[in-house]
Amino acid sequence: MTAVSDQSDALFRAMRETAAAVDRRFNAVLLQSDGLEHRLMEATRYASIGAGKRLRPLLVVGSAQLFGVDLSSAIQVGTAVECIHTYSLIHDDLPAMDDDDLRRGKATVHKAYDDATAILAGDGLQALAFELLASEETHADPRVRVELVAALSRASGFGGMVGGQAIDIAAETESELDLGAITHLQRLKTGALIGFSVEAGGILGKADPYHREALRGYAQNVGLAFQIADDLLDVEGDPESVGKATQKDEEAGKATFVSLLGVDRARAQAKYLVEQALEHIEDFGEEASLLRGVARFVITRDK
Amino acid sequence: MTAVSDQSDALFRAMRETAAAVDRRFNAVLLQSDGLEHRLMEATRYASIGAGKRLRPLLVVGSAQLFGVDLSSAIQVGTAVECIHTYSLIHDDLPAMDDDDLRRGKATVHKAYDDATAILAGDGLQALAFELLASEETHADPRVRVELVAALSRASGFGGMVGGQAIDIAAETESELDLGAITHLQRLKTGALIGFSVEAGGILGKADPYHREALRGYAQNVGLAFQIADDLLDVEGDPESVGKATQKDEEAGKATFVSLLGVDRARAQAKYLVEQALEHIEDFGEEASLLRGVARFVITRDK
Repeated sequence: MTAVSDQSDALFRAMRETAAAVDRRFNAVLLQSDGLEHRLMEATRYASIGAGKRLRPLLVVGSAQLFGVDLSSAIQVGTAVECIHTYSLIHDDLPAMDDDDLRRGKATVHKAYDDATAILAGDGLQALAFELLASEETHADPRVRVELVAALSRASGFGGMVGGQAIDIAAETESELDLGAITHLQRLKTGALIGFSVEAGGILGKADPYHREALRGYAQNVGLAFQIADDLLDVEGDPESVGKATQKDEEAGKATFVSLLGVDRARAQAKYLVEQALEHIEDFGEEASLLRGVARFVITRDK
Repeated sequence: MTAVSDQSDALFRAMRETAAAVDRRFNAVLLQSDGLEHRLMEATRYASIGAGKRLRPLLVVGSAQLFGVDLSSAIQVGTAVECIHTYSLIHDDLPAMDDDDLRRGKATVHKAYDDATAILAGDGLQALAFELLASEETHADPRVRVELVAALSRASGFGGMVGGQAIDIAAETESELDLGAITHLQRLKTGALIGFSVEAGGILGKADPYHREALRGYAQNVGLAFQIADDLLDVEGDPESVGKATQKDEEAGKATFVSLLGVDRARAQAKYLVEQALEHIEDFGEEASLLRGVARFVITRDK
């Protein structure tokens, strides 16, 4: 028990430190303004600072640790991923998309400000993600920086997150998805960005193909486990602790892992996926303890 | 007269060839799909292919010519800029923003499809811009590719195009802009992306600081001349030939170069800016004939 609670302590400490470091980075790069753009910058800071679990930056930090990469590089890349993740939440919450009022425990950006500001805040955050990656603060080697840009742009574009979101919307009206189709959708919609976050440590650390393959295996399993946990929270979670509306999938008549498998089998499947994830990174030894902690956390979290 | 019409012939040939090459590039990278993402890809192709003057790609081609850069590199970068420009038009046209029905002579994306699809098409195009720049097809040297990413992300983000758009929206309700404030707004909103397009040839060609400074001077003047011409088209143009709604600035009570200077002084100012632009690139000789042609075209165009 002591060993387990020590592990949890270490994980929660890493989570707090990563979240604080990402906040500092956002605070430094999202400048407040007293010009006419002040409302946009205020809204962007409102959405970006002090919000979210910072799970993706934590995955960057965890994978960077495997290869002795500087923490400051990992935080820079983690902040870039969080730019993409945050912009996607802002846009997804718009009335024209999911029309949500609550996100990360507070009013969504278009509710607290307005739709135009929310669209622009998202657009600006996407550009900022690539500006951060291209900066020399990310890594001294331009080869590494451009590889990060290539990987993040692929993960967030038509062949990744944006494509997944389009499939998700189309599925509501056009067809009933089966398990294979939902797996494909989630690999794009949430899996691609989680995959990038894990891969990023390997890119920063110039890892060899064998280690990169191990990271990919870990990421695919953690990504799906994360999504099943999200579906379970939507069914069982309380909006107040989850920080966003729940029961949305059922109301929308959406097929999910939980609606297709049932709660018990979905939970068992998530647990199995986490075990698979852990196997992929077995060879890494002690350095992988953070990635192990995150994998276990993904299915035990309550938000 | 023959010399002038030869120059025009050469310019219009370059415009046609550049537009065709950008269309081919879009056609190759925006894959059609028979999956659930087909509607998104169809909408994105609708917005991107066969549309617009491709003025920004032409500026990339023109500046790349000064340094003997491969045309295929210039077209790749030009397509990336056009991704950003096209996404900004799609998002600006949304009901939550300018609420326009007509663009480039056809229905806007949210009219032809729907708001959610328009938001996602724009988001995906922005990611695609950086994916194109990061690709080895852009340039063999990763240093060059990452410099292009840094420059384009700055030009399109909070300190560039997105920031300018936010100022433009705020100005409608918050204050009456004077000439200095409008110049600042336009430097961000349209000038930054035009500036990147001209700068891109210098980055691709690893130009020395002296030549880069000359390009910057050219770009600043051409950018403002372009905007004044745009304002004049809004006042005097016919929606059918311009391909979008006109008289919008006056209806919105917006201060523009034309509302502040009057038609005659605005036209004289645009002409003066073009002369300034030409002076900046005087030293480049014959290789700069395309950039000279574009500068003159900017204030004589009818759309």
